[in-house]
Amino acid sequence: MSLIQIEYASKALKRTVQVKAIIPNDVMGFEERKTQPVYKRPMKALYLLHGYMGNCNEWLLYSNIAELSIKYNIAVFMPSGENSFYLNNEAMEAYYSDFIGEELVAYTRVMFGLSMKNEDTIIAGLSMGGFGAIYNGFRFPNHFGKIIALSSALIIHDIKDKDETFHNGVASYSYYHHTFGDLERVVKSDKNPEIIVEKSIMEGNVMPALYMACGTSDFLIEQNRSFHKFVQSHDIEHTYVEGEGVHDWRFWNQYLEPGLQWAL
Amino acid sequence: MSLIQIEYASKALKRTVQVKAIIPNDVMGFEERKTQPVYKRPMKALYLLHGYMGNCNEWLLYSNIAELSIKYNIAVFMPSGENSFYLNNEAMEAYYSDFIGEELVAYTRVMFGLSMKNEDTIIAGLSMGGFGAIYNGFRFPNHFGKIIALSSALIIHDIKDKDETFHNGVASYSYYHHTFGDLERVVKSDKNPEIIVEKSIMEGNVMPALYMACGTSDFLIEQNRSFHKFVQSHDIEHTYVEGEGVHDWRFWNQYLEPGLQWAL
Amino acid sequence: MSLIQIEYASKALKRTVQVKAIIPNDVMGFEERKTQPVYKRPMKALYLLHGYMGNCNEWLLYSNIAELSIKYNIAVFMPSGENSFYLNNEAMEAYYSDFIGEELVAYTRVMFGLSMKNEDTIIAGLSMGGFGAIYNGFRFPNHFGKIIALSSALIIHDIKDKDETFHNGVASYSYYHHTFGDLERVVKSDKNPEIIVEKSIMEGNVMPALYMACGTSDFLIEQNRSFHKFVQSHDIEHTYVEGEGVHDWRFWNQYLEPGLQWAL
Amino acid sequence: MSLIQIEYASKALKRTVQVKAIIPNDVMGFEERKTQPVYKRPMKALYLLHGYMGNCNEWLLYSNIAELSIKYNIAVFMPSGENSFYLNNEAMEAYYSDFIGEELVAYTRVMFGLSMKNEDTIIAGLSMGGFGAIYNGFRFPNHFGKIIALSSALIIHDIKDKDETFHNGVASYSYYHHTFGDLERVVKSDKNPEIIVEKSIMEGNVMPALYMACGTSDFLIEQNRSFHKFVQSHDIEHTYVEGEGVHDWRFWNQYLEPGLQWAL
Repeated sequence: MSLIQIEYASKALKRTVQVKAIIPNDVMGFEERKTQPVYKRPMKALYLLHGYMGNCNEWLLYSNIAELSIKYNIAVFMPSGENSFYLNNEAMEAYYSDFIGEELVAYTRVMFGLSMKNEDTIIAGLSMGGFGAIYNGFRFPNHFGKIIALSSALIIHDIKDKDETFHNGVASYSYYHHTFGDLERVVKSDKNPEIIVEKSIMEGNVMPALYMACGTSDFLIEQNRSFHKFVQSHDIEHTYVEGEGVHDWRFWNQYLEPGLQWAL
Repeated sequence: MSLIQIEYASKALKRTVQVKAIIPNDVMGFEERKTQPVYKRPMKALYLLHGYMGNCNEWLLYSNIAELSIKYNIAVFMPSGENSFYLNNEAMEAYYSDFIGEELVAYTRVMFGLSMKNEDTIIAGLSMGGFGAIYNGFRFPNHFGKIIALSSALIIHDIKDKDETFHNGVASYSYYHHTFGDLERVVKSDKNPEIIVEKSIMEGNVMPALYMACGTSDFLIEQNRSFHKFVQSHDIEHTYVEGEGVHDWRFWNQYLEPGLQWAL
Repeated sequence: MSLIQIEYASKALKRTVQVKAIIPNDVMGFEERKTQPVYKRPMKALYLLHGYMGNCNEWLLYSNIAELSIKYNIAVFMPSGENSFYLNNEAMEAYYSDFIGEELVAYTRVMFGLSMKNEDTIIAGLSMGGFGAIYNGFRFPNHFGKIIALSSALIIHDIKDKDETFHNGVASYSYYHHTFGDLERVVKSDKNPEIIVEKSIMEGNVMPALYMACGTSDFLIEQNRSFHKFVQSHDIEHTYVEGEGVHDWRFWNQYLEPGLQWAL
Repeated sequence: MSLIQIEYASKALKRTVQVKAIIPNDVMGFEERKTQPVYKRPMKALYLLHGYMGNCNEWLLYSNIAELSIKYNIAVFMPSGENSFYLNNEAMEAYYSDFIGEELVAYTRVMFGLSMKNEDTIIAGLSMGGFGAIYNGFRFPNHFGKIIALSSALIIHDIKDKDETFHNGVASYSYYHHTFGDLERVVKSDKNPEIIVEKSIMEGNVMPALYMACGTSDFLIEQNRSFHKFVQSHDIEHTYVEGEGVHDWRFWNQYLEPGLQWAL
């Protein structure tokens, strides 16, 4: 297994970005010294997104992703999303969605000899990263075959129509306006995953399959139930799971592996 | 000498940030093995800022900063500025100026046992980082005693009054508006280092001394000459140097060491 | 919390070494932006040693050490032991024991402003790292107040008197001879932790307290029981725990936290 | 350009090793945002070895290797050699030569899609790394087409026949015995690059071409002249250069680029 830290000049973000990766390229046996590692190429890939206020280290530090990477023989790439909700930000010329959904996939496929097939490519995340997985998975159906979305921060309907006095304890109107654009129009804008899904269906794309999980005591449970109904009504292939739990690593560690088993 | 990579939860940016550091804490002699390193505490510190499109690696990869750190026995901290011009961005709730000028100084002083005196603390940078060094050096005169500004991107007067059709080959109106706020008011706003200097003088602060260098063929030479006249007219202690050269690492490598010698 | 990667010139190993660290120096609250992190200095410290074939990443990747570091407010340092059993190797002029037990403690205490008291300093490890924790904890009683040893590879009596035909599936005679010296004399040599304990008692040192845990199905259980009897017969303050389990991360993750609770 | 840190489980060293890399996989233009990076695959590769007491950071910190990597469009891999002289050490079961000359080449070729041809593969180093480049270049002629050896520590004839009282200010008899084996037989042993060259010629291999450079005031100048005569007398294709200088980075920075130009 390789633990890799990558820093490269991103065109989509117009600056150098940091990505961490785990690539299960070898198996070191106790019993004998073989200098030739065992490689299986091309590999499947998992793009794994962190939550609000985190960075590329979160999954490494708080989950057993290294173990899962080896167990399921899948390369894992963890970028830093910088509170962007993994959305393009035209105002600041920082195209996070293009970075996650297009550039990073292209970069890592060539750099690490990954499978070029969307059916071998998974996007997953928790909270803000769950939003990012859903958004970018459906925005780039030719790149991703599967989406795993845990406790997703599907907050579009919570922030719509808010005015400048809004602050929900996490962030203020200013931040939401910066991230999602005009909040009066956000529901119908291309920052809303529902719009992305409908647009993608209209274009006749083969849509990725979706796995959603959320804790019944999570403060985002209703938002996840709503989106579940939304994808159901649009005939998106999906699995929806609820379990006891709140918005924490215990829940995410409990549901990441079933999500992977569903996807692989 | 220690090469250190730090990732910590920044309050000012509301997320985990990456900083690289070189700390000349020991001298390993060939002649004998001594397990007790030689420490000199508290240490002087240099905060070293990269240019537009770069990150915390730039100075490490393209300059001889490791050698200079050892030669002048000074701890060097290199943060990532992410095309922010090291300015607070209220709209996105990302306070880069507070991060560079206040939080990072406080964090590193306690974490690494640095000198608490502004006279032992230098802020320096190139291009966008030169702008950031000037801006934050004068905004936080109690934290920094010296500023080294190389080929500084003092572009306020270039972007003022621009409208939405503006694009100067580097970035567009949208980006400048995002970064500097309303361009019609930018000259009189607190994003203009001149305003910061004047405000700081008014408050009766002891101002840091400034070292400026710019290449005579640099596309930013006139902007640097203007700011030189500005600080001159405001009786800021400073040294201004011009030399043959353009906007490249040859120039920055030529003038960083004289800047350090001036500062130390 | 800070995740830190340190590379510094070690005198004890005569080359640059890599250490990873987690330092719980701040708490970032959701509710408000405070640029001044909360520091508690001087901090307690835990030196955490990996097993055979591992490196400084193991504890980061396979345990919840980041969570524990924050929960118990203790700085954690993870060096790379390179199959050395954390013993001095005079033949290769690589003094791993001095590195772990003396230099790294001195280096990190000054670099990160740690507590200078042995009662605030813990050494811990698993398997080969459990051996290293016991060996260096008792060799440097003035540096360490507590030892946590999980599934320790206390193999001195397994390798004594072996000849050149020996190979136990893990490594050969050659490796053991290289690491532990003359196997005919190893039991009475200063590579045997028992000798270190007895020497330290003779010198009148206040000995660190010891916490040992081993799985009842671990292939090293008898070796751990023997050493338990040894410390018992020498009146070393210690806690000895057995639990269901084998030589794996499930066991180590189960017993690290109780070990820390015992130590703190 | 990508700066990459790799930590992977080496079979040859039976533990996790750290390698740094620079891979010039993209060119980020100022003028436009293109999300699709420009890749040229398969790439040429340079394995770049540090000197005694260094590690994988040395070339990054003290040379302009990042600039050269981009300029000549070549992937650069910098492993840590840990005072091993890049030789197999049978006694400690740590096979550094196999690691450098075989495993790392195989690992990086598959991991990063490098050219499989020896003519596209260069091994280079300074001082101890120059020794390692020569030794492993000639030991693995099917892997490397070109060798660049700067100020090489070709010390076999300096340490032969030394006894236990030997210490040359750098290291003692014990270390040399550990690293090179029996010093009475070292000249005729497979730790001597001359023996490796002669063996490889006997086997009928197509030998890599060699570029050697050494400063006229370097303490290793005579050793380099001797080896130059040796390869001359064995009809090895080579270029030998002397220049003013000592054993320092000024010299290595002056001769690395001409070496690369010769090789490419």
